[in-house]
Amino acid sequence: MNKMNVQAEVQLKGQKAKEAARKLASLPTDVKNKALLNMAKLLEERTEEIIAANEIDMDAARKKNLSKALLDRLLLTPERISDMAEGLRALVALPDPVGEIISMWTRPNGLQIGKMRVPLGVVGIIYEARPNVTVDAAGLCLKTGNAVILRGGSEAINSNTAIVRIISQAAENAGVPEGAIQLIETTDREAVNVMLKANDFLDVLIPRGGAGLIQTVVNNATVPVIETGVGNCHVYVDDEADLEMATDIVVNAKTQRPGVCNAMETLLVHEAVAEKFLPMVARRLEEAGVELRGCEKTRRILTQIQVATKEDWATEYLDLILAIKVVKDMQEAIEHIHNYGTKHSEAIVTNNYQRARDFLQSVDAAAVYVNASTRFTDGYQYGFGAEIGISTQKLHARGPMGPKELTTFKYIIFGNGQIRT
Amino acid sequence: MNKMNVQAEVQLKGQKAKEAARKLASLPTDVKNKALLNMAKLLEERTEEIIAANEIDMDAARKKNLSKALLDRLLLTPERISDMAEGLRALVALPDPVGEIISMWTRPNGLQIGKMRVPLGVVGIIYEARPNVTVDAAGLCLKTGNAVILRGGSEAINSNTAIVRIISQAAENAGVPEGAIQLIETTDREAVNVMLKANDFLDVLIPRGGAGLIQTVVNNATVPVIETGVGNCHVYVDDEADLEMATDIVVNAKTQRPGVCNAMETLLVHEAVAEKFLPMVARRLEEAGVELRGCEKTRRILTQIQVATKEDWATEYLDLILAIKVVKDMQEAIEHIHNYGTKHSEAIVTNNYQRARDFLQSVDAAAVYVNASTRFTDGYQYGFGAEIGISTQKLHARGPMGPKELTTFKYIIFGNGQIRT
Repeated sequence: MNKMNVQAEVQLKGQKAKEAARKLASLPTDVKNKALLNMAKLLEERTEEIIAANEIDMDAARKKNLSKALLDRLLLTPERISDMAEGLRALVALPDPVGEIISMWTRPNGLQIGKMRVPLGVVGIIYEARPNVTVDAAGLCLKTGNAVILRGGSEAINSNTAIVRIISQAAENAGVPEGAIQLIETTDREAVNVMLKANDFLDVLIPRGGAGLIQTVVNNATVPVIETGVGNCHVYVDDEADLEMATDIVVNAKTQRPGVCNAMETLLVHEAVAEKFLPMVARRLEEAGVELRGCEKTRRILTQIQVATKEDWATEYLDLILAIKVVKDMQEAIEHIHNYGTKHSEAIVTNNYQRARDFLQSVDAAAVYVNASTRFTDGYQYGFGAEIGISTQKLHARGPMGPKELTTFKYIIFGNGQIRT
Repeated sequence: MNKMNVQAEVQLKGQKAKEAARKLASLPTDVKNKALLNMAKLLEERTEEIIAANEIDMDAARKKNLSKALLDRLLLTPERISDMAEGLRALVALPDPVGEIISMWTRPNGLQIGKMRVPLGVVGIIYEARPNVTVDAAGLCLKTGNAVILRGGSEAINSNTAIVRIISQAAENAGVPEGAIQLIETTDREAVNVMLKANDFLDVLIPRGGAGLIQTVVNNATVPVIETGVGNCHVYVDDEADLEMATDIVVNAKTQRPGVCNAMETLLVHEAVAEKFLPMVARRLEEAGVELRGCEKTRRILTQIQVATKEDWATEYLDLILAIKVVKDMQEAIEHIHNYGTKHSEAIVTNNYQRARDFLQSVDAAAVYVNASTRFTDGYQYGFGAEIGISTQKLHARGPMGPKELTTFKYIIFGNGQIRT
């Protein structure tokens, strides 16, 4: 496909999405919920069709010698398709954020001013190989009254095409306007470039995937972006920590699911407890298969481990690897987080009241924890339900982006002839 | 100054701002308020110095034959300096948004999760010739704990340099960290380009000025932008409107202050009342010196007026000119607003209950009015106090951007050893 055709496809879909968004904004909740149930049902009914398409992707991926991890992300099974369907059904139970009056007040001149929650409009999602993102994103956007333009990784193009064909048909059958859920079908990378500058029809772009993808989008998009996902998260164990609690939190933050953005990547330990704490925690981490890398002070205590370099401090391993640094006090820990953190999730373990307060105050991140695992930064764990990602930027949304974060508001003003004097 | 020096200046100031922002985030409210009072006092005390600098700018502007309107925007007088000082004093009375706990809840596992309001960090303001923006923006950013990097128009460089020298010194004397208020002193346009891509140290860019400036920033910035200001606002007069009320609202929306973004630019009139309403309103508008331009149907009633072209529908006159279109029903009015509006402020005048509801629901704008003038879209009118602009985009902030809109939040989580299972 040549450059002009790519542009034409994206723009045509953009126009359709924009038209659909106007209708979606006033679509009743029960129509949206019925559509979500239809989508879930049709996904399950047409499992074979999806798996056949997925096999084409899997074959091509194996020929390209993609890594085992990537192949696993790409793979669809009846069980995984069922999970996607269940995800859609779970959305039905969530309250519809659209139309909520967030607040309303009356001015001295009698004007009644309200803030009404409305959809963002058209959301662009740029993501990598995981086809489940297709369903998750489409479902959340529909629930929140947004049109969505999906641009998944080329490895998953056949899977995604089948999925979107099925769910968009199911949605339309329930009364959702055509164009509400669309996939960019060309695998030409130029399509991403067109989306990045499509201010005319995209209200927001949400990249989901690795650091490289996110940086490309942030550095080149003129459409407003919500940056998600990269989490170089730290746990700082203070000299006044309960060391048993600290051990449990560190092991949980590192090993409970190492491949996700809210997992811990670097452990910071106050020097006064390092000699006692590091052997305790190292044993538990090594039992769980974690490779440890440490600063010089750490390696004087854990003599068998590799050295951690500056690169380690900056790395989101997403794997069973942990960097460890001994710090002389909380301030050094905070400086380290300031220099290497990605403003995602940061934790302190301490029983010192003032330090807990100071850490909460000083650390600039979407989520700052006292005496709990960083793994809680998650829409379900916070009580919001499904999320479209974890925002690590400051504008609009921070932390888990649930249904409310996919909306904006407008002021509605009721007067009886007021004019300004 | 060559390109490298420009980049060096912006980056150096960016780094200083970033450092200042960390300290500003925890600066007590009383220090910030004392600084605002100091800034106001020193501005007034050093009025002569500011006016001397302003005269250099005015001389240069006169030599360049700038328009009368631009010269007036640039001019500083003792009275205008006093007004700027009063603006700073007014900020003292506003509540400090920083540190507010927006909400807090407890999860079934005992985790207590709160949303705490925090500053955005470093705010970049790119604006045109009005030196009062320098003081307004610096004051609002300081009140909200943000560092600010100001980039005003080159015509005002001497005025702005004098003002920032004075207010930053006054702020520092009160305990505000160095680097909290900075001006880009090179007038090289390259400085704007550097700011547009300065994701490393700018958390948000706010352009203030004409449509050209705003489009340049939106189309080229990779730093998150809050788009402000362009207002192609409409009033739709329904066939069930109280025509006396409609006349008052239309005259107010057009003439009370025609040069601002919330003034009406196009009047839409239901055809069933056009013959009665247009002569009524035209007489009042012409008395106020408004030039009228109309569609063909309008000109059959107001036979003396010029024709309005497609270009008129798209123009924000910011002047005593009004385009008028007769529409066959509310739906046509909504379509016209959809096609030509800038999502700023839109109004309907009607006594029909269902149409009032439908208009509020269907029109996508920051502020949608029933039976009131569009001129109310303003921080003070909404009860927020001072504002940094009117956001016409959907992400983060919409409508008047007061102190709260210059903040973000972080989740603070209190645990007692919770781990994820």
